[in-house]
Amino acid sequence: MAHTIVKLTVKDVRFPTSLEQHGSDAMHTDPDYSVAYVVLDTDCGLRGFGFTFTLGKGTEIVVCAVEALSALVVGKCLQEIVSDFRAFYRLLTSDDQMRWLGPEKGVIQLATAAVLNAVWDLWARAEGKPLWKLLVDMDPEQIVSCIDFRYITDVLTEKEALDILMKAQAGKQQREDEMLKKGYPAYTTSCAWLGYTDQQLKQLCTDALKSGWTKFKMKVGADLEDDIRRCRLIREMIGPNNTLMIDANQRWDVAEAISRVSRLAEFKPLWIEEPTSPDDVLGHATISKALAPLGIGVATGEQCQNRVMFKQLLQASALQFVQIDSCRLGSVNENLAVLLMAHKFQVPVCPHAGGVGLCELVQHLILFDYVCVSASLDNRMCEYVDHLHEHFTSPVVIQDAHYMPPKDPGYSCEMLDSSVQRHEYPEGEEWKLLMK
Amino acid sequence: MAHTIVKLTVKDVRFPTSLEQHGSDAMHTDPDYSVAYVVLDTDCGLRGFGFTFTLGKGTEIVVCAVEALSALVVGKCLQEIVSDFRAFYRLLTSDDQMRWLGPEKGVIQLATAAVLNAVWDLWARAEGKPLWKLLVDMDPEQIVSCIDFRYITDVLTEKEALDILMKAQAGKQQREDEMLKKGYPAYTTSCAWLGYTDQQLKQLCTDALKSGWTKFKMKVGADLEDDIRRCRLIREMIGPNNTLMIDANQRWDVAEAISRVSRLAEFKPLWIEEPTSPDDVLGHATISKALAPLGIGVATGEQCQNRVMFKQLLQASALQFVQIDSCRLGSVNENLAVLLMAHKFQVPVCPHAGGVGLCELVQHLILFDYVCVSASLDNRMCEYVDHLHEHFTSPVVIQDAHYMPPKDPGYSCEMLDSSVQRHEYPEGEEWKLLMK
Repeated sequence: MAHTIVKLTVKDVRFPTSLEQHGSDAMHTDPDYSVAYVVLDTDCGLRGFGFTFTLGKGTEIVVCAVEALSALVVGKCLQEIVSDFRAFYRLLTSDDQMRWLGPEKGVIQLATAAVLNAVWDLWARAEGKPLWKLLVDMDPEQIVSCIDFRYITDVLTEKEALDILMKAQAGKQQREDEMLKKGYPAYTTSCAWLGYTDQQLKQLCTDALKSGWTKFKMKVGADLEDDIRRCRLIREMIGPNNTLMIDANQRWDVAEAISRVSRLAEFKPLWIEEPTSPDDVLGHATISKALAPLGIGVATGEQCQNRVMFKQLLQASALQFVQIDSCRLGSVNENLAVLLMAHKFQVPVCPHAGGVGLCELVQHLILFDYVCVSASLDNRMCEYVDHLHEHFTSPVVIQDAHYMPPKDPGYSCEMLDSSVQRHEYPEGEEWKLLMK
Repeated sequence: MAHTIVKLTVKDVRFPTSLEQHGSDAMHTDPDYSVAYVVLDTDCGLRGFGFTFTLGKGTEIVVCAVEALSALVVGKCLQEIVSDFRAFYRLLTSDDQMRWLGPEKGVIQLATAAVLNAVWDLWARAEGKPLWKLLVDMDPEQIVSCIDFRYITDVLTEKEALDILMKAQAGKQQREDEMLKKGYPAYTTSCAWLGYTDQQLKQLCTDALKSGWTKFKMKVGADLEDDIRRCRLIREMIGPNNTLMIDANQRWDVAEAISRVSRLAEFKPLWIEEPTSPDDVLGHATISKALAPLGIGVATGEQCQNRVMFKQLLQASALQFVQIDSCRLGSVNENLAVLLMAHKFQVPVCPHAGGVGLCELVQHLILFDYVCVSASLDNRMCEYVDHLHEHFTSPVVIQDAHYMPPKDPGYSCEMLDSSVQRHEYPEGEEWKLLMK
């Protein structure tokens, strides 16, 4: 069976998370976690599911962009796509009229991610494997054939990418076995959203410590005195030996970032995340240099739109932790390029997750990174947030603060029909009730 | 009268330019020049017109984004907006749910430009002045109050911006008179689109020389031998003393750009435009450094999405010509920030124009730059392309290869009703005929 894609459906699905300040940070005070949700139907009945993550308003714009891309997808057969995935990636990102709207950034890139995530899900289902295992079982040549090297050859050539993957073949089976047994280390962001009260924060820390969490991230960046009070509170709760990270969600200018984080250095954060504009490579480099003597690294990436930006962040020593995102970048294809570049620069990858479904997706990528690229867990961990997993047919499994490798075929993108129906915007029952 | 905005209308208007290869380059082989066209209605009957430029497919996505932004605009009164334009700019660009779709890049930024271009048009009409004159007559304090300095204070503070504007007050009236008399120098891109035959190219060069043009830009970047042949042909046509620029429209990787442009150095181009990815600040810096000994500068900006990217291009000495765009950046507000930063670094601004309506808009900005910021014409010129001006109510006036300052009130954004109706996509008569 050729698995010809005969139909693409896309839906605007939103969860009213802002009602309880889940996900609130210094720049996104009231997010409604949402997805542009894609379903691919094939002639043989197999379906592929994919999405991109959004914060509520404007999800309809991404839906519109997915619809614009669908003409490039419907009618293609899976075999044809994956036999030259690089070309298909470029077909979507370099359409000679639509690339003006990016290129490879913003809405059109988010839409590309949604569509390609569904294609990867379809491929993994067709092979009967979870996506991470599909990737782990691929030849290095096949991995490399999925990557568009345009604009990154000054840092990573196809040959260098192949060499990295070949070298990491040693010990691969061992690492896969290790992951299946112990899982991939995670950290939690669920305890300290900006909109939570101190009381909530204490309770959530206590619960998390009991469940075995040892690495905690908190939101900062609004009021300095609040930041100091909350940092102190959390550090007291978790003790000196557990890990603390802080996240400003782009709130500061460069000089302000340096001075604000210096004030928080006494609480020994491992990293400051998104200290300034996600576009500011040189600004991140300045901040990194200034904070290095304090032992604080810079982490960024959840709003880093493509491999060209990550290339520069690495070239400029602008970050010490690479935070890939399964939906911001152009799906698995572009994430593979970033994983390989990060390895070349020996910068650890600590994926962004949370929102809705991001944990489900990115766990596959970081498993592949460990087994087939980095072969290291030093300074590495994957973000975890405990919201909205109940809406997925194959939700993440966390054991003792580790992501356990998914077993179901696919990319863990499929949502429950009932969840999709109930949360479709604005027609779903949930929204009808709220808008009454 | 308060000029309260009571309605925002947005239309998808496309011109089938691809039929004759107008606008064809190495990455955009078949553009249909298009706009997302915005009309603001006010309670007192005054209207504001604005648009952003696109290449055809996907214009409907920008239309959808404008509709999403309209809730932030409708109901506001002009006086309220312009009395704190910085805050209004940030309202549009930093909506806490929609900023996830950018921030300040791609579709959502193009939509912001369309909306704010209409607001500026409305303001200039309310004042009974062409936009350039509205800007020229503003106090430095008022200019600065339109700019969002977030993320650029490491390079330009509000105080420095004010100082630049205050200093340029000297000789202002003289420069305004000079512009009214002679106009702003222009160059032409109309002779050498990539899809034109050598015969067309020769004829167009001959005609342009006769009309007084002395500066010519040609498209390169597909086949090297073709580039060499066409460069030689144009250089022969225009002679050694006229100016030649070449434009690769992002076709190359970094090393490739350096080697390809080196091969074209014998034809003495003033600049190579868009040699690589528009996101690659460090790549442009490498190319600039390599080409400097050949006397060739790097120009870029038409796909540079915001002030943070321009800031870095300037910091890294990555470009020698700043090509602002009236629709890619967040309207006049963000262009003001870039003009001031370029002045600080003493890099000349040579705006991108062409497409549909870009010449009409950007002439206002470059007039302001000369009169109130740079006070220099050295190495400065504004792009001109002679297409589609007939669709505007106040089309550009070119005299002896100079842009003559517009006289009609507004930002020259208004299109003829008949043109809009005929080219609306897909319902307009023009498209109905083509799709038969």
